[in-house]
Amino acid sequence: MYKQYSFLNSLICSRCGKKYDPSVVQTVCSCGGPLLTEYDLASINENVSPQDFAKRSPNLWRYHELLPVVDEKNVVTLGEGMTPMLRAKTLENKLDLNNLYIKDEGILPTGTFKARGAAVGLSKAKELGIRKISMPTNGNAGAAWATYAARAGITSVIVMPKDAPKITRCECYAAGSRLYLVDGLISDAGAIVKKASEKYGLFDVSTLKEPYRLEGKKTMGLEILEQLDWKAPDVIIYPTGGGVGIIGIYKAMKELKEMGWIDEISTRLVSVQAEGCAPIVKAWEQKKSESEFWKNSETIAFGINVPKALGDFLVLDAIYKTNGSAVAISDREIIESQLETARKEGLFMCPEGAATIAAARKLRNQGWIDKNETVVALNTGSGLKYPEVLDFNAPLLRPEEELSL
Amino acid sequence: MYKQYSFLNSLICSRCGKKYDPSVVQTVCSCGGPLLTEYDLASINENVSPQDFAKRSPNLWRYHELLPVVDEKNVVTLGEGMTPMLRAKTLENKLDLNNLYIKDEGILPTGTFKARGAAVGLSKAKELGIRKISMPTNGNAGAAWATYAARAGITSVIVMPKDAPKITRCECYAAGSRLYLVDGLISDAGAIVKKASEKYGLFDVSTLKEPYRLEGKKTMGLEILEQLDWKAPDVIIYPTGGGVGIIGIYKAMKELKEMGWIDEISTRLVSVQAEGCAPIVKAWEQKKSESEFWKNSETIAFGINVPKALGDFLVLDAIYKTNGSAVAISDREIIESQLETARKEGLFMCPEGAATIAAARKLRNQGWIDKNETVVALNTGSGLKYPEVLDFNAPLLRPEEELSL
Repeated sequence: MYKQYSFLNSLICSRCGKKYDPSVVQTVCSCGGPLLTEYDLASINENVSPQDFAKRSPNLWRYHELLPVVDEKNVVTLGEGMTPMLRAKTLENKLDLNNLYIKDEGILPTGTFKARGAAVGLSKAKELGIRKISMPTNGNAGAAWATYAARAGITSVIVMPKDAPKITRCECYAAGSRLYLVDGLISDAGAIVKKASEKYGLFDVSTLKEPYRLEGKKTMGLEILEQLDWKAPDVIIYPTGGGVGIIGIYKAMKELKEMGWIDEISTRLVSVQAEGCAPIVKAWEQKKSESEFWKNSETIAFGINVPKALGDFLVLDAIYKTNGSAVAISDREIIESQLETARKEGLFMCPEGAATIAAARKLRNQGWIDKNETVVALNTGSGLKYPEVLDFNAPLLRPEEELSL
Repeated sequence: MYKQYSFLNSLICSRCGKKYDPSVVQTVCSCGGPLLTEYDLASINENVSPQDFAKRSPNLWRYHELLPVVDEKNVVTLGEGMTPMLRAKTLENKLDLNNLYIKDEGILPTGTFKARGAAVGLSKAKELGIRKISMPTNGNAGAAWATYAARAGITSVIVMPKDAPKITRCECYAAGSRLYLVDGLISDAGAIVKKASEKYGLFDVSTLKEPYRLEGKKTMGLEILEQLDWKAPDVIIYPTGGGVGIIGIYKAMKELKEMGWIDEISTRLVSVQAEGCAPIVKAWEQKKSESEFWKNSETIAFGINVPKALGDFLVLDAIYKTNGSAVAISDREIIESQLETARKEGLFMCPEGAATIAAARKLRNQGWIDKNETVVALNTGSGLKYPEVLDFNAPLLRPEEELSL
């Protein structure tokens, strides 16, 4: 019997509710709002169960009914997904928690969670016949999209700030991407990409300017639920730059609730930012529904150096609706948490991921998290991509020399 | 009912056949030969089936009956294993092959296959009550052992050549290891570690000086077989430094054959080395059973810059017994294959892994591999760990500038 691969239904504007046809290329709504993907959830519920997922290969395509790629032959994959949920027992003692998990997105192709968005986004781009993409990036998203574009046989043009992690340049170069650096921020890269895309007919895959990256990120939420036996955790802590991760996790929960696979959305979502770039935190503290451009932003957690995100209102909505929170962390706390987690748990996180551990400590100290609650902190990438944040010296020996401890 | 976690039986010397007790700490045989782990394979066969493995979590501990850790509570894990077997369709066309897979070991904690040996080796060290380990390394093994030692709460002392990949220093530092650099080769690091271990009472986990790293590496072979539905591939191509990978894969096949899960060992094993350090290739060409120390070795594929491996005779035995081959690749061919694979398949391999693609091309051109044979090339690590091998420039734009394609 033919089994339908995707139950993709339509696209809907997150601002004005206008519907769009997903069988042709779409970008954003005529009102400027990002488009969200809708599925025939009732039919999915009739066709597939959590037990079916469990039998499939350990990658994000196991959730294909809930993903936008209609024909399996268009799937562009490097085996991404089903990243480990690591129990952090030593940190539990340090932070006075009983159930702390770190979901390690560092173990994905290209070393960050960006692989999820790139895999789904480029698969759908391929399905829609797109041949050339363009993207402004703080490094890791560009590296992921360049890599998956190479696998898809699609040309990529990537623009990143010159201060973005150096390894991400290598990844773009290796993947055969057209790479440009800009002496500025991601917002400057975005302006350059916009112009170039119009001039050269490139498909601009900036954050939330195409609908499907979000669907890839959504699989983090699906995996967390499956890995906890479809029992939602009390708190999920996520580092927030463009915000697609937290929006995706919230979208996953809404879809699972609508299908009845979880009873209610009991998880409080926490957005973590750096003190040097905290527009979401500021907006949340002021109970606003949108953020303001954060001037002169600066942080070692380069991936969350995003002064103003297109989807800020969706991030804030997810926080408000789930009774969540927003926390700003200093660069010093980030480095301390990074080293503490590497030394105590053997997990070398990226700075953005380390910020979630600092946030867990802060929220526990404030009593906002209860000791017995189940907490999931997202490590969005591998520390391997950020050698420059560590400052140390190792003694150099001559071959005949002895070491002394 | 109590289910036995491991069917560990004994240790046996790979040279003289003398048996050793695995319930206490062992190193090498009194004759100097590496020790191999033996299991009660008949009982495993009665207790578990391939179908049982398929239901377990996607990490290497799914094979726990065939691993040496007796009590599950001693397992030290970061979720390692079940790495993707990626079909390389574009390279198939280029290389005139019909069935080329790349097993991507870059998607493991610490970014290389070394995580397998470290996970199993340190779990068993923990089980045996070891508190301090020491290791000479070309970088990646040291990084992996330092990382898993941190997770196990075990102290590590790591010595590596100053020319080893810089990121591996960061990993050791982040994990709280005592790290030393040496102005020399891994053989010099080995001499320093030997002295320090005697002086300070450290457990020396040099390649094949403890028996269990090999058991971790063995899981690559188990996974390849499971991922190909227990149908052995015709050829497996592996980059060879210390040689534990190829020895482990061969050991996996022998155990599976003895259990009757595969009919025969029909796979030919190929050892790939760099032209600047090819002791195994030279010995194989001369039909010798051991290699000679390779003087003034040099290659950009740093992980296989091993002038003389303790287990060379086991590697050669595996090649001879399987009618395999040994191939030397130039640094230029390595870089070309690395870029080709990144551009055509979206897979950014380490130089050692890229050497296997160059070897596949060479062996296919020679007719040694038939077009219709199933070939598995092992990418032993992520290209992310070797930014220094790529040489390129990206244009730098001012914020107001336009890019021109």
